Amino acid sequence: MDSMTIIAVASIVIAGLTTGFGCMGPAFAEGRAVATALTALAQQPDASATITRTLFVGLAMIESTAIYCFVVSMILIFANPFWNFAIAQAAGK
Amino acid sequence: MDSMTIIAVASIVIAGLTTGFGCMGPAFAEGRAVATALTALAQQPDASATITRTLFVGLAMIESTAIYCFVVSMILIFANPFWNFAIAQAAGK
Amino acid sequence: MDSMTIIAVASIVIAGLTTGFGCMGPAFAEGRAVATALTALAQQPDASATITRTLFVGLAMIESTAIYCFVVSMILIFANPFWNFAIAQAAGK
Amino acid sequence: MDSMTIIAVASIVIAGLTTGFGCMGPAFAEGRAVATALTALAQQPDASATITRTLFVGLAMIESTAIYCFVVSMILIFANPFWNFAIAQAAGK
Amino acid sequence: MDSMTIIAVASIVIAGLTTGFGCMGPAFAEGRAVATALTALAQQPDASATITRTLFVGLAMIESTAIYCFVVSMILIFANPFWNFAIAQAAGK
Amino acid sequence: MDSMTIIAVASIVIAGLTTGFGCMGPAFAEGRAVATALTALAQQPDASATITRTLFVGLAMIESTAIYCFVVSMILIFANPFWNFAIAQAAGK
Amino acid sequence: MDSMTIIAVASIVIAGLTTGFGCMGPAFAEGRAVATALTALAQQPDASATITRTLFVGLAMIESTAIYCFVVSMILIFANPFWNFAIAQAAGK
Amino acid sequence: MDSMTIIAVASIVIAGLTTGFGCMGPAFAEGRAVATALTALAQQPDASATITRTLFVGLAMIESTAIYCFVVSMILIFANPFWNFAIAQAAGK
Amino acid sequence: MDSMTIIAVASIVIAGLTTGFGCMGPAFAEGRAVATALTALAQQPDASATITRTLFVGLAMIESTAIYCFVVSMILIFANPFWNFAIAQAAGK
Amino acid sequence: MDSMTIIAVASIVIAGLTTGFGCMGPAFAEGRAVATALTALAQQPDASATITRTLFVGLAMIESTAIYCFVVSMILIFANPFWNFAIAQAAGK
Amino acid sequence: MDSMTIIAVASIVIAGLTTGFGCMGPAFAEGRAVATALTALAQQPDASATITRTLFVGLAMIESTAIYCFVVSMILIFANPFWNFAIAQAAGK
Amino acid sequence: MDSMTIIAVASIVIAGLTTGFGCMGPAFAEGRAVATALTALAQQPDASATITRTLFVGLAMIESTAIYCFVVSMILIFANPFWNFAIAQAAGK
Amino acid sequence: MDSMTIIAVASIVIAGLTTGFGCMGPAFAEGRAVATALTALAQQPDASATITRTLFVGLAMIESTAIYCFVVSMILIFANPFWNFAIAQAAGK
Amino acid sequence: MDSMTIIAVASIVIAGLTTGFGCMGPAFAEGRAVATALTALAQQPDASATITRTLFVGLAMIESTAIYCFVVSMILIFANPFWNFAIAQAAGK
Repeated sequence: MDSMTIIAVASIVIAGLTTGFGCMGPAFAEGRAVATALTALAQQPDASATITRTLFVGLAMIESTAIYCFVVSMILIFANPFWNFAIAQAAGK
Repeated sequence: MDSMTIIAVASIVIAGLTTGFGCMGPAFAEGRAVATALTALAQQPDASATITRTLFVGLAMIESTAIYCFVVSMILIFANPFWNFAIAQAAGK
Repeated sequence: MDSMTIIAVASIVIAGLTTGFGCMGPAFAEGRAVATALTALAQQPDASATITRTLFVGLAMIESTAIYCFVVSMILIFANPFWNFAIAQAAGK
Repeated sequence: MDSMTIIAVASIVIAGLTTGFGCMGPAFAEGRAVATALTALAQQPDASATITRTLFVGLAMIESTAIYCFVVSMILIFANPFWNFAIAQAAGK
Repeated sequence: MDSMTIIAVASIVIAGLTTGFGCMGPAFAEGRAVATALTALAQQPDASATITRTLFVGLAMIESTAIYCFVVSMILIFANPFWNFAIAQAAGK
Repeated sequence: MDSMTIIAVASIVIAGLTTGFGCMGPAFAEGRAVATALTALAQQPDASATITRTLFVGLAMIESTAIYCFVVSMILIFANPFWNFAIAQAAGK
Repeated sequence: MDSMTIIAVASIVIAGLTTGFGCMGPAFAEGRAVATALTALAQQPDASATITRTLFVGLAMIESTAIYCFVVSMILIFANPFWNFAIAQAAGK
Repeated sequence: MDSMTIIAVASIVIAGLTTGFGCMGPAFAEGRAVATALTALAQQPDASATITRTLFVGLAMIESTAIYCFVVSMILIFANPFWNFAIAQAAGK
Repeated sequence: MDSMTIIAVASIVIAGLTTGFGCMGPAFAEGRAVATALTALAQQPDASATITRTLFVGLAMIESTAIYCFVVSMILIFANPFWNFAIAQAAGK
Repeated sequence: MDSMTIIAVASIVIAGLTTGFGCMGPAFAEGRAVATALTALAQQPDASATITRTLFVGLAMIESTAIYCFVVSMILIFANPFWNFAIAQAAGK
Repeated sequence: MDSMTIIAVASIVIAGLTTGFGCMGPAFAEGRAVATALTALAQQPDASATITRTLFVGLAMIESTAIYCFVVSMILIFANPFWNFAIAQAAGK
Repeated sequence: MDSMTIIAVASIVIAGLTTGFGCMGPAFAEGRAVATALTALAQQPDASATITRTLFVGLAMIESTAIYCFVVSMILIFANPFWNFAIAQAAGK
Repeated sequence: MDSMTIIAVASIVIAGLTTGFGCMGPAFAEGRAVATALTALAQQPDASATITRTLFVGLAMIESTAIYCFVVSMILIFANPFWNFAIAQAAGK
Repeated sequence: MDSMTIIAVASIVIAGLTTGFGCMGPAFAEGRAVATALTALAQQPDASATITRTLFVGLAMIESTAIYCFVVSMILIFANPFWNFAIAQAAGK
């Protein structure tokens, strides 16, 4: 069962790190975008419609990179082909 | 029981690190967003409705990345498929 | 008793690090938010009601990430499922 | 089965790290681009058509580097030639 | 006595590090808040009541994260469940 | 099969890291170029033709360094001379 | 005497590091607060009473985090429960 | 075949790292140059001919350092004298 | 004499590091405070009495953190309870 | 053949790193010089002859440090005295 | 003579590091203080007496932290109690 | 031949690193000097003779530190006394 | 001769590092002081006597920290008490 | 010959690192000083004599720290007392 343990541990470690570190970038970027949106709103309240729309499109785009990381983590925990292969082989043995 | 211990340790370590480091990004980003909101409020008190609304939408978006990290930690502690498989195998042995 | 020791050590180490490092982000962010609130108050004393309210909502939101970390630490020290499993197994042996 | 385990672990680790770290750069860059777009909109609301168009072309270009990373991760998880070779050899043995 | 030593060492190391590093964030944040309060007082001496009140609320909030770290350190030194379990087991042996 | 495994692992690891880290630089640089283009557009809407043209030439030049990294990764995964030599030797044995 | 040595070494190392690193944060923060106080005094000499009072309250608050670190160091050197337990056990042996 | 494997691995690793890290510098530098060119164009649209010419000469010069790195990578993968020597010796054996 | 050597080495290493690193923070902070005092003196020569007094109180406060580190170093070199215990035990043997 | 392998590996590794890292400095520096040249051209179009001449002399000087690194890499790959000595000795054996 | 060697090596290493790193902080701080003094002198030549006096008091205070480090180094090289104890024991043997 | 190999490897590694890292500082410094020269030329075209002369003297001085590093590398590759001693000893054996 | 070798190696390594790293701080600080002096001279040419005098006193003070490092290096190479003790013991044996 | 090899390797490594890293500080500092001198010349062409003189004195002072590092490297390569002692002992054996 040794090699299965190693695969399990690697999947756990990487699933955590990918989400943990991969969310820092988007979080910073969203903080920056929101902050600038607020500054822009204070400067030009009349353009609030355009600003809000551009902000939401941008946030969606940035959030997408956070979701890539979350997706990779979920694949590694719940749909890991290497783990499935190992279980299949352990079962067939 | 050795391989179970390794999986348990890896889960504990990564659950902690994912939350510990993964919360730094959102915390910084929220601090930045709140700070800019306050500056914007001081500059343009009349637009406080729009500013507050945009701030809360932004905070919710940023908080979502912190929650991804917390969710991964909780999955690793309470719904870990690798741990469940190991228990099942240990029970069936 | 070896594998129990390892789980205990990992829990101690991660409980400390998660709180120790996980509190840096919120602390910085709160410091930044408070600092900007004070600047805003000095700039626009009339808007002190709105500024104070927004500040407290923001601080609560930021504090929530610090609390996620503290919760994970407390779970690891006092409600650790891996440790409970190990004790149960050691008792049943 | 030892060498297959090593290849599996390396693929898991690198798939996670490539996406986790590779998304930080694009996230920051998109945050910066969106932030500047909002500032520009606040400064020059009349040029909003040109600004929005340039922003979206730029975001697409930046997103492409995030997608290179995601593609490499997916290749390593689901279309890894080294893993396929190892399976083929294990099956033919 | 080996596993007790390891638990003791881990508790000592982490108790120190948690306080040592965990106090850097709050210290910086408090320094920043105090610094801005002083700037604000110099700019707007008339609002000194509001500024001082907001400053003290903010300092209390920031200090709370330092106290989380100190609490974890004290729990690890004086109310460590893993250490108590180990002593109990060593006594009962 | 040991030395083949090592070559495979090294290729996987380096293919991921080269793309993962090598994309950070171009992403930042493109973010910066796009951000400045937007600022320039807001400052001088009349020169939008020249600005957009220069921007696209520059983005292409920066993207070229990201593509060098992606090319090296693809060579290492799909056209690796060291791996081919190893397969040839393993087949001829 | 081996396990006692390890506990002694860990206590020495952590006592030093906790004070050594834990004093950097407060030192920086106090430097910043004092620096701003001086700037504020130069800007608004009339408010020197309020500024000085706020400065001293703030310095006391910041100093408290340095004192937490010093207290933990002193506890580890002179009132270490793990060391006392080890001595007691060595004496009773 | 052991020493050949080591040479192959070293060549793979270094070829990737040289391109991966060596492209960060030029990418940043080109981003900076393009960004300043755009600012300059917005400031002085009349000098666009001189600016564009200087920009392209500069980009070529910066690109040259990226190409040094790419050349070293290609030499290590496809024209490596140490690898050729090893193959020659392995063939002549 | 082995365990005594380890305690001696740990004491030497930590005594040096605590002072070496622990003095960086206060040095920076004092440099900053002095620098601001000089700027303040140049701006407001009339308030030199208040500025100088506040500066010296602040320097004393900052110096106190450097002295905590120096005290810990001196305790570790000349009044180390762990070393004394080891000598006593070695003598009594 | 062992010691030859080590020399070959060291030469490969260092040849790559020297070029890879050694090109970052010159690339940044050239980016900075070109960027300032463009700013200067926009500020003072009349002095474009002097600016361009000084820029090219400066770029040549900076490029020289990149070329030192490239020269060392090429010496290590194609004219390595340690490798030649090793081949000579291996041939004469 | 083994344990004496270890103590000697630790003393040498730490004596060097303590001075080497411990002098960076004071050097930076003094550079900063001198730089500000020069700026202040250029701004307010009439206050040169006060500025110079405050500068020298400040430099003396900063130099004191460098001297703490130098003192610890000298103690470790020429008045090391652990080394003296080891020599005494070696002589008495 | 073992100890010769170690000396050869150390010489190769250090020759590369000394040039690779040692050229970063001068490259940055020259980039900075050239950049400021260009700014100065744009500000004061009349003083171009003095500026250019001072620039070239400064570049020569900075280049000298890069040349120290290159000289050390060349000494280590082509005039290494430790290597010569080793060859002499190997020949005389 | 083994323990002598270790002492010699430690002395060589630390002598180099202490000077190599310990000179960075003073170099930066002197560069900063000289740079500010030049700015001050350009701002206030009449005060050149006071500025130059203060600069030279300051440079001497900063240089003193570089000299502490150089002195420690020279002590470790030419007047090392640990090395002398080792030679004396080796001679007397 | 083993211990001689270790001393030789340590000398080579440290000689390279001391020069390689020790030249970064002076290079940066000289770049900064030259850059400020050029700015000062552009601001105040009349004071060029004083500025140039102060610059050259300052460059000489900064260069002195680079020369300390170069001197230590040369001592370690060509006048190393530890190496001479080792040769003498090897010859006398």
